[in-house]
Amino acid sequence: MSEPIRILLVGTGQMGSAIARIVLEKPGLALVGAFGRRRERAGVELGQAIGAGRDLGLHVRSDLDATIALTRPHVAIQATCSRLADAVPEISALVRHHIHVISIAEEMAYPAATSPHTAAVLRRLAVEHGVTIVGTGINPGFVLDLLVITLTGVCADVRSIRAERINDLSPYGPSVLTSQGVGLTPTAFRAGVERGTVVGHIGFQQSIRMIGDALGWEIERIDENRDPIISRVRRQTPIVTVEPGAVAGCLHTAVAYRATKPVITLVHPQQIHPQLEGIETGDSIAIDGTPPVRLSGRPEIPGGLATAALAVNLIPRVLAAAPGLHSMVDLPVPGAMLSDPRRCVSTHR
Amino acid sequence: MSEPIRILLVGTGQMGSAIARIVLEKPGLALVGAFGRRRERAGVELGQAIGAGRDLGLHVRSDLDATIALTRPHVAIQATCSRLADAVPEISALVRHHIHVISIAEEMAYPAATSPHTAAVLRRLAVEHGVTIVGTGINPGFVLDLLVITLTGVCADVRSIRAERINDLSPYGPSVLTSQGVGLTPTAFRAGVERGTVVGHIGFQQSIRMIGDALGWEIERIDENRDPIISRVRRQTPIVTVEPGAVAGCLHTAVAYRATKPVITLVHPQQIHPQLEGIETGDSIAIDGTPPVRLSGRPEIPGGLATAALAVNLIPRVLAAAPGLHSMVDLPVPGAMLSDPRRCVSTHR
Repeated sequence: MSEPIRILLVGTGQMGSAIARIVLEKPGLALVGAFGRRRERAGVELGQAIGAGRDLGLHVRSDLDATIALTRPHVAIQATCSRLADAVPEISALVRHHIHVISIAEEMAYPAATSPHTAAVLRRLAVEHGVTIVGTGINPGFVLDLLVITLTGVCADVRSIRAERINDLSPYGPSVLTSQGVGLTPTAFRAGVERGTVVGHIGFQQSIRMIGDALGWEIERIDENRDPIISRVRRQTPIVTVEPGAVAGCLHTAVAYRATKPVITLVHPQQIHPQLEGIETGDSIAIDGTPPVRLSGRPEIPGGLATAALAVNLIPRVLAAAPGLHSMVDLPVPGAMLSDPRRCVSTHR
Repeated sequence: MSEPIRILLVGTGQMGSAIARIVLEKPGLALVGAFGRRRERAGVELGQAIGAGRDLGLHVRSDLDATIALTRPHVAIQATCSRLADAVPEISALVRHHIHVISIAEEMAYPAATSPHTAAVLRRLAVEHGVTIVGTGINPGFVLDLLVITLTGVCADVRSIRAERINDLSPYGPSVLTSQGVGLTPTAFRAGVERGTVVGHIGFQQSIRMIGDALGWEIERIDENRDPIISRVRRQTPIVTVEPGAVAGCLHTAVAYRATKPVITLVHPQQIHPQLEGIETGDSIAIDGTPPVRLSGRPEIPGGLATAALAVNLIPRVLAAAPGLHSMVDLPVPGAMLSDPRRCVSTHR
C-alpha cells in the first residue's frame, strides 16, 4: 500500500469539522493538521475541535505558513468563508507551497462569475506551481448547475431551464439564519436586503455562468429577487423563534436572459421548518428541450453533509487533473470515494 | 469564425440518421460524409438516407478507407453495431487516420467490461495516434451509470445502489423488438434466452463496472436475469402484435455483489406500450448512503433521441480530452452543445 494522501483542514467550523470527520473515515487519506482563523481556536486538540469523539494527537493552529511547513500536506480543503476575496489569500499561500486546494467557498465554485481577473490570476498561479484549485459544494457546485448541465447532455436542443431547490434551514447556525433574514419583520427583511445584510443564497451568479459557459449561451443579464417568506405559524429552532407574521426565510430567485429571453430560472427558497406549512423540501430540474427532461427528488439532498462529502470525493479527481483552476463542470464527476483515492478511477487509465 | 469541425457519420441506420440530423443543425459542425456497411446503401444521396428533407450533395459510401481519404474528418460518430468485437475494426481504421471516434455501440461504453485486452489495445492505439475514443449512449452511458455515479458524489458513504429504467419500446424497429423477445410465447422467450437470441439489455456489465471502478468497489460477481413480461392485454405497434398471454418485452435485471453482499441492483424492463397496463415509464435512482439520495423522472428520457444528442454533445469534450480511450465517467460531463463546440467550455480555460 502506498503512502496516504496528506490532507490539511483549513477552517474548523461546522463545515470544516464535517469534512474532517469524513476524511478520518477514508482509507488512503491522512488528516495531518488543521488551520483555524480564530486565534482562540489555536491549541485546541483537533479531535475535540471537530467532534471526532477521540483525540487525534494534533492541534488546531492559527499560523497558516507554519501549519503548512509542519504538516507538508498534498491537498488542503478550505472551509473558512463564502466570498472570493476572502478565500484567495489562503488559497494563494497554499498553492505557493505546491498544495492542491479544494474550496467550499461559494464564490470559488466559479470564480470568473464575480472576477474574471481573479480567476485568471488563480489559474496562472496553479499552473505555475503544478497544482489544481477547484471549488465545490451542493449549491453552487451541484444541484443547480452540475446536475442541470449533466441533464442537458441528452438534449439536441434546449429552449429554457428551470431548477428549484426547496430546503430546510433548521439545522443551521446563527450566521446562516441571519444571512437569510430568519426572525426579522417583513419590513426589517426588506431593509436588510437594501443594506446587504440579508444576502439570501450566494451562488446564482456562479451557477448561471457555469451553465451558460458549458452550453455556449451568452448570458446578457441576470435578475435576482429576494422576498421574505412570511410565516403563518410559529416556527422554532435552537437559535431562533419565528412568530406568525415574521420572516421564516428568504425566497431567492434568479432569472438569466439571452437575446432578451429568459432562459435560466433558478428558484431557491430557504427557510426553517417548511413542513410546518405543508411545504415539501426537494430538488427539481425541468429542461424545456428536445427531448424535454424532468428529474426531481424529495427531500432535498441535505446541503451540509453533501458539501462536505463532495469536497472529500473530489480528491481523486484533483490528483488526476491537469494543473490549473477547475470547476465541477470541467473535471470528471466525483463519485463517492469508497476506496483508496488512487483506486477510484476508470480502468482505462 | 474558425473552420467547422468535420464530422463523418459511420452508420446510416435509424440511430446514425438521427445523429446526422442533429449534426446538420449545429453551428461549428460540418457533416462531410457517411459510411454505410450495407453495399445497397452506397450511392444513396445522404440527405435522403438520413431523412434530412433536402439533398446535401453527398452520398453514402461503403468503402471506409476511401470515405476517410475523401472527407478528411476530425471526428467520426459510429452507429453501426452493439458489440465490441464488431465495433473495433471500424474504430481502429478511423484512429489510424488520426480521427477521434465517438461510438454508440453499447459495449464501447466501457470496453474493459467485456475485454480488458481490447480496451488496452484501443487505449494504446488512440494515444499513439493522438486522438480520443469514447463510447456513449443513454444506457449504458448515462441513466444507469453516469447519473448514478454523479449522485453518489454527495455521499460520505454508500451501502447500496438501486436504479431502474422503465421504457417504452413501441417506437423501435424489428431488430430491437426481436432482441427483447417481443411477440414470442413465454416458452419461446425462455428458449430464446437459453439460445442467446433473446438478449435483453446490452449494458449492465458496462454500467456496473463503470460504477464499481468510479467508487473503488471491487465487484466479485454479477447475476443477470431475463424474465418475459407477459401481456394481459392486446398491444400493437407497426411491427408486431402481442396478444394477451404473449410476451410484450423483457424484464432484465442485474445484481452486483461485493464481499458477498448485493451492492448494485439495476432493473430495466423493456416492453411495448407499458401504459396499456397502467405502467408509468420513468428513470429512478435510489442510493442507500450517507445521506440517502433519491432522484426520479417521468416519463423516461427517450433513449433514441437522447443517445443521438449525447453523441453530438460529446464533441467539445472529445476535442479537449487527452488522447486515449475514455468513458462518460472520465471526461467532464457533456452539456447540450448550443454553440460552436469550441465555445462550449469553462471560462477558466
